[in-house]
Amino acid sequence: MGVALSRSAHSLTNALVNWRSASHTRLLTLATEHQTLIHMTSVDLRLDAQWVVPITPFGALPDHAVMIDNGRIVAVCSAEHAEREYIARETVSLPTHVLLPGLVNAHAHSAMALLRGIADDVALKPWLEQHIWPREGRFLAPDFVHDGTLLAAAEMLRGGITCCNDMYFFPDAAARAYRASGMRAMMGLPVLDFPTSYAANADACLQAGLAARDTWKSEARLAFSLAPHAPYTVGDESWAKIVMYARQLDLPIQTHVLEAPDERAQSVVQYGLAPLERLDRLGATGPGFIAIHCVQVDAADIDLLSAQGCHVVHCPTSNLKLANGVAPIAALAARGVNVALGTDSAASNNRIDVFGEARLAALIAKAATGDAASLPAATVLRMATLGGAAALGLDDKLGSLEAGKHADVIAVNMGGLDHVPCYDPISHLVHVTGRDQVSDVWVAGERLVEDGVLTRVDAQDLAARARFWQDRLQ
Amino acid sequence: MGVALSRSAHSLTNALVNWRSASHTRLLTLATEHQTLIHMTSVDLRLDAQWVVPITPFGALPDHAVMIDNGRIVAVCSAEHAEREYIARETVSLPTHVLLPGLVNAHAHSAMALLRGIADDVALKPWLEQHIWPREGRFLAPDFVHDGTLLAAAEMLRGGITCCNDMYFFPDAAARAYRASGMRAMMGLPVLDFPTSYAANADACLQAGLAARDTWKSEARLAFSLAPHAPYTVGDESWAKIVMYARQLDLPIQTHVLEAPDERAQSVVQYGLAPLERLDRLGATGPGFIAIHCVQVDAADIDLLSAQGCHVVHCPTSNLKLANGVAPIAALAARGVNVALGTDSAASNNRIDVFGEARLAALIAKAATGDAASLPAATVLRMATLGGAAALGLDDKLGSLEAGKHADVIAVNMGGLDHVPCYDPISHLVHVTGRDQVSDVWVAGERLVEDGVLTRVDAQDLAARARFWQDRLQ
Repeated sequence: MGVALSRSAHSLTNALVNWRSASHTRLLTLATEHQTLIHMTSVDLRLDAQWVVPITPFGALPDHAVMIDNGRIVAVCSAEHAEREYIARETVSLPTHVLLPGLVNAHAHSAMALLRGIADDVALKPWLEQHIWPREGRFLAPDFVHDGTLLAAAEMLRGGITCCNDMYFFPDAAARAYRASGMRAMMGLPVLDFPTSYAANADACLQAGLAARDTWKSEARLAFSLAPHAPYTVGDESWAKIVMYARQLDLPIQTHVLEAPDERAQSVVQYGLAPLERLDRLGATGPGFIAIHCVQVDAADIDLLSAQGCHVVHCPTSNLKLANGVAPIAALAARGVNVALGTDSAASNNRIDVFGEARLAALIAKAATGDAASLPAATVLRMATLGGAAALGLDDKLGSLEAGKHADVIAVNMGGLDHVPCYDPISHLVHVTGRDQVSDVWVAGERLVEDGVLTRVDAQDLAARARFWQDRLQ
Repeated sequence: MGVALSRSAHSLTNALVNWRSASHTRLLTLATEHQTLIHMTSVDLRLDAQWVVPITPFGALPDHAVMIDNGRIVAVCSAEHAEREYIARETVSLPTHVLLPGLVNAHAHSAMALLRGIADDVALKPWLEQHIWPREGRFLAPDFVHDGTLLAAAEMLRGGITCCNDMYFFPDAAARAYRASGMRAMMGLPVLDFPTSYAANADACLQAGLAARDTWKSEARLAFSLAPHAPYTVGDESWAKIVMYARQLDLPIQTHVLEAPDERAQSVVQYGLAPLERLDRLGATGPGFIAIHCVQVDAADIDLLSAQGCHVVHCPTSNLKLANGVAPIAALAARGVNVALGTDSAASNNRIDVFGEARLAALIAKAATGDAASLPAATVLRMATLGGAAALGLDDKLGSLEAGKHADVIAVNMGGLDHVPCYDPISHLVHVTGRDQVSDVWVAGERLVEDGVLTRVDAQDLAARARFWQDRLQ
């Protein structure tokens, strides 16, 4: 923050009187015509909106502002307070908009955006074995991953997602794409026992992944985790190594677990244990464990996830589309398990749209429990933001609009005909808003979407690259 | 169609040689330098698109055109054929778009757009009794219905819905709104036994409704049906009159049926019959019977609906949100029952978005049946168009792009980053497209949305009216 002289406050006319330095800010004290003393803090950016939904505390604050300096949130305050206390180098006025924290997509395989819609109406096993893996076998390479990840990042940013939890091959190429896009990402370093174009086995996966982490670990908008694909594709020996690295390097572990109906029985046959029980015995569970899907969890699994402080990522569209079912989110949430929302890949969704997931999560929870009060809008909106940040272990930095956190902020325009009337903006954010109403997106205070247009990514060039891959894959 | 002289065809230079008249068109025969004879038909409008999805026949036709004259479709043909055979007064080029028939929203309470989001997270009975009916009791009047209907019509048109099946009070006021908007609607003339601000009883409902029909029956874009609210709100005597009027006036009957879990038991207690069995005995069922919701239908109900040739309107969002469940659509479709899609009202949805309903219908069918192949995109897209038209008894006029049908056509722009790559445009229309990608909408050949902007409705004025009602209702 710097020093500035307010011209916008009420009837300031007189000259400088007093100058002093404070610990975090330097204040300029001016005498007005009326002898009032005004202390104003200068900031980079002021966002004025019809409502601010900071998530913490929860609610929709009318006529509020978010003050941003040096990439971080300085304050969330009333417009009146902002006018009196702050002077901003840039002010963006959003008179029919809601400001809220950027959405977190807690499960993505971003590069698979290039496989969007390549095989619908197929269950998980044949979908993987007959459609996805053969194509990955032929085309998987760093340039495929770079272009696919950039395509997904552009789609995510345009739809208000400022951070995603990715899990895919060639994380180095993905990291390049995220850096180009400006969005925040946790890179899941993939581990599989069987050979792929990426690596010959689990050890080679770990080696390649940790090398990518070494290259990129100082990049402010990137974070890392270990990503064994699933209990059924990674054996005990590899899991043991993953747990060791996770402890040594303080990295979260993310994995697909209990996604399809047959996984439990298969695990019992192969290991004599249910999948989560097995991972628990291997030491994988805990507050750094991100359990993706959890469609088929039973009461014992919920006990375990709750007792160990694990996180669950709910991917409702993908779970429905692959006919896996509906995860018991209300039961998990009731036991205090943190739940985040994920899109899964564009090959099984086929959108990368957390607004869509939030709405769907709210709707299917009501039908699945028979209780219309299940997963109210407030709960779901928290899952889409702070719940996601907490799953990634980043809730001290992201997920809510609070002083000190990164300025990852999105604006939703509620001025259109489909948002009127508006009795409750939080209800609208879940049950009415489409991602197309996201007008502006800031990550670390940088405006990456301005009035609907991506500022860093050349959309036409990117679409042409996607079509190039389409021609090859077809 | 008229007479025209092509200047765009290949190297036409010579003068008029021959003139003759055909039964439906008048053709101008010209001699070219190369002595070729060219017969061109003149039309009002030619729409050129990357793909045309006519629904009948089913498929995505690349580089095709839709030729329109006098509000009707003249032909769907290749761009090359169009260039050779037709000369259009206006040509719209849509190089990254899909053209398809306008969507049909087969169940709406349009005026309730003014109650959008007024009460979430409540089951059907308390939602009606504690939230909706008391407010309707205070505010229901023609001006409320007019403004709410216009708001809904604007939202529907903007999202690619060209025809809706409405069911609400004061159909005369709603008809005024539809006429102003330009969209097509079937007006359900509501019947309830208990008194409302609209009418004192069922007889008064019928009287008021049939009077509205007399006023508006020559309006080309309006159609009418009888709309007893539900088996549980309309007694046998009233149903008998409704059936009589339906036969005399050749009107369809639409009603909410088996929406909530308790309706069957309640009907058995009160009438000794399940709801559909009772309506069947009263003579209400048949090819003119539109059964809305059908969440709780059992095997006998499905038999009855199939045997009688009834139509079912599936409203997945509303059914989930009010915790009523998931209608067995795959089972109904397997028995040959025609299924259409509906949004229900914006008070229980809270969008009026048939693209959203189509996607949700596809997704929940897969999870409900455990079969990922259930309700493929093609089936759902047909429900959203021709299925809707058939439910309304209008499939000879609407629901597909075929010569002779009304030119109700929408364009979806697939040029954006979220639609690339595109391996199958029909998959994208269901699993990727949001209503925001609808760029243009024609009803009876009239362009009601042009590049995303409503041409007849003043959006700012309408939003202001919606806020006026919000202030009163709050």
